[in-house]
Amino acid sequence: MTDSPALASLRLKKNEDRRLKQGHLWIFSNEIDTEATPLKNFEAGQVVQVEESNGRAIGIAYVNPNTLICARVLSRNPKVKLNQTFIKNRLQAALQLREMNFSELCYRLVFGESDGLPGLVIDRFNDVFVVQITTQGMERVKHDILQVLENLFHPQAIVVRNNSGSRELEGLPVAEDEVIGTLPEEIIITENGTQFAIPVKDGQKTGWFYDHRMARRRLQDLVQGKRVLDVFSYLGGWGLAAGVAGAAEVTCVDASEFALDGVDRNALLNGIAEKVITVQGNAFDVLKALKEEGHKYDVVIVDPPAFVKRKKDLKAGSEAYRRINEMAMRLIEKDGILVSASCSHHMTRDGLINQVQQAARHVDRHLQLFDQGHQGPDHPVHPSIPETEYIKTFFFKVSSSL
Amino acid sequence: MTDSPALASLRLKKNEDRRLKQGHLWIFSNEIDTEATPLKNFEAGQVVQVEESNGRAIGIAYVNPNTLICARVLSRNPKVKLNQTFIKNRLQAALQLREMNFSELCYRLVFGESDGLPGLVIDRFNDVFVVQITTQGMERVKHDILQVLENLFHPQAIVVRNNSGSRELEGLPVAEDEVIGTLPEEIIITENGTQFAIPVKDGQKTGWFYDHRMARRRLQDLVQGKRVLDVFSYLGGWGLAAGVAGAAEVTCVDASEFALDGVDRNALLNGIAEKVITVQGNAFDVLKALKEEGHKYDVVIVDPPAFVKRKKDLKAGSEAYRRINEMAMRLIEKDGILVSASCSHHMTRDGLINQVQQAARHVDRHLQLFDQGHQGPDHPVHPSIPETEYIKTFFFKVSSSL
Repeated sequence: MTDSPALASLRLKKNEDRRLKQGHLWIFSNEIDTEATPLKNFEAGQVVQVEESNGRAIGIAYVNPNTLICARVLSRNPKVKLNQTFIKNRLQAALQLREMNFSELCYRLVFGESDGLPGLVIDRFNDVFVVQITTQGMERVKHDILQVLENLFHPQAIVVRNNSGSRELEGLPVAEDEVIGTLPEEIIITENGTQFAIPVKDGQKTGWFYDHRMARRRLQDLVQGKRVLDVFSYLGGWGLAAGVAGAAEVTCVDASEFALDGVDRNALLNGIAEKVITVQGNAFDVLKALKEEGHKYDVVIVDPPAFVKRKKDLKAGSEAYRRINEMAMRLIEKDGILVSASCSHHMTRDGLINQVQQAARHVDRHLQLFDQGHQGPDHPVHPSIPETEYIKTFFFKVSSSL
Repeated sequence: MTDSPALASLRLKKNEDRRLKQGHLWIFSNEIDTEATPLKNFEAGQVVQVEESNGRAIGIAYVNPNTLICARVLSRNPKVKLNQTFIKNRLQAALQLREMNFSELCYRLVFGESDGLPGLVIDRFNDVFVVQITTQGMERVKHDILQVLENLFHPQAIVVRNNSGSRELEGLPVAEDEVIGTLPEEIIITENGTQFAIPVKDGQKTGWFYDHRMARRRLQDLVQGKRVLDVFSYLGGWGLAAGVAGAAEVTCVDASEFALDGVDRNALLNGIAEKVITVQGNAFDVLKALKEEGHKYDVVIVDPPAFVKRKKDLKAGSEAYRRINEMAMRLIEKDGILVSASCSHHMTRDGLINQVQQAARHVDRHLQLFDQGHQGPDHPVHPSIPETEYIKTFFFKVSSSL
């Protein structure tokens, strides 16, 4: 201890250490003993020692005095320092979990709190890494993070995405992306035996959504010879996986021309361009038009963007999930399959099942929920932090009413 | 309608049709307009026409005037009859779902309400079928069920299990099993590339638990070269699947000598006898002893019998789940895997995660929930009947505290 400058203390009110002891990592501003340790004395991003009300040190955290979550615990060991060694250890533990699960070098390498690195997300696309920092605490050690990535992986390029909306809430500058190293002309990953060219610079979020990988793998068991409709397809994550697994025909629907260009490129990459169709437009409109034109599909995937971003959107969002699933069901052949997903944390599993079942009753269909998916192992859930879980996927057999 | 004898009516009270309209199939005795249609006028098992309070027919059901669930809906079409055609249609729909998911002829063919056949469970072991009937309504058409099975599958044998406890609650005789046809000397199924000899006559329930198949398949991805401990192993469903998938060593723990003889037989069948160890005893005692002897494992599976059979067992049962998972964690190598399952409907997913997390905090471990399992597709969930869902499985990476 003598060789390290003492950290400032952040003292909790009495009994406010309970949630932390259960394993949670967040400290809310109303849990601080602000007489003993006024929040205004801390800089945004400063690392502190967390103390119980009796002064016993229980870990280290970084602070942001300006946000509701005023501190995030980094370690339960008060002697640990947030430095390159710390970051390296956490990255190696995260890597071990991914290597346990995947043979390809394509995954979310770091998933924030769940990997003990709150405020940090890193996606890996073979030799290219995309880094997203959303807290002041992590921003302060950005160069250490980049250095550790360099040392561990010798990446061809690292992209630092600075344009996420959550940076603004944290008081971080929203700016252009930075590129360290040289981005290859095309970045191609493999997921479930399917190749995808990833627009790490111009795509959505980090360029790709690894979170549905396991559910897409499950889909591949079910599509041999089938006609598949992928609604909200983005780059074809579901639809092309189905195409590669033997689907007879795949139709991808997305509002974005850019995304559908990606679908076409990826269909070519996998040698299945002849059976892939793209339809550009608002999903609700396109499904209505497909119905009017008499189209039918054996398998329909509905994986919308988050319709419930905040708790207060729950009612309207639930209604949107109900409507889009109902429209999907109308397009499904007798005894076909509906794959219904949500990435809204606030939309619970039971809530989504309930919306889909309401839709089914409305169009007089009988549903059997025969499988269920979760976010993949590179998006581990922290068992004490429900907010780390957001993906849900349901596989329904859709029959006429009993 | 002229050619069918009119069914007696069962009339609902006002607004008591709401749950049925949402898709549920159960009618409780307090929902009946007993002035219009006294329950005591019905025989146990009688098929009736269900009416709204205004007399509109909304389906058919069978009745048991002596149970809390006094009727179970068979169809929303009031003109349908419960006969061999009806049973054949339901069996064929059920078969289609299984064939969509499995290439082997080994599965639960009928899962009660979820397959539109309340009170009926049929497990298929290739050419042998095991039938369990747990309601008066199904018992009445037992010979039709057997005849349809005969016509559709020409089984080598059908075993009718008459000794389940739930028969007693329903007022059905609990008796010896019946065997129709000739049981082969040994019944061998294949699940996830693993062979198992199934004791359909002397084993637990129907002889085998197909419900964990998908989670066991997932386990197989994770065990190459690992030392695996299978707690509450029964015939080795998890452990031997791991052995076949390349685990270095498998230890199966069960209280039943009969079950462990099955493990040994199945290990031989799969040519992995040399790496399979069995330990007979109470799981809590055995885990304690293994700990004292200094044993460690890379992967531990904890899949106990239902610790929470009824709602009132929840507190004691939760505590038992916590304790057994804590004991398991003490036996896991650093960065090893805990697979924690429950087959108790009343133990919710969040409830079990919470118990395991409490255990982890108690022994100062950090958990990452990296995958989650559900009952397999031959145990479909009815989206309106939460009681049809009971299996949950969690895959945790277990590390030292952050």
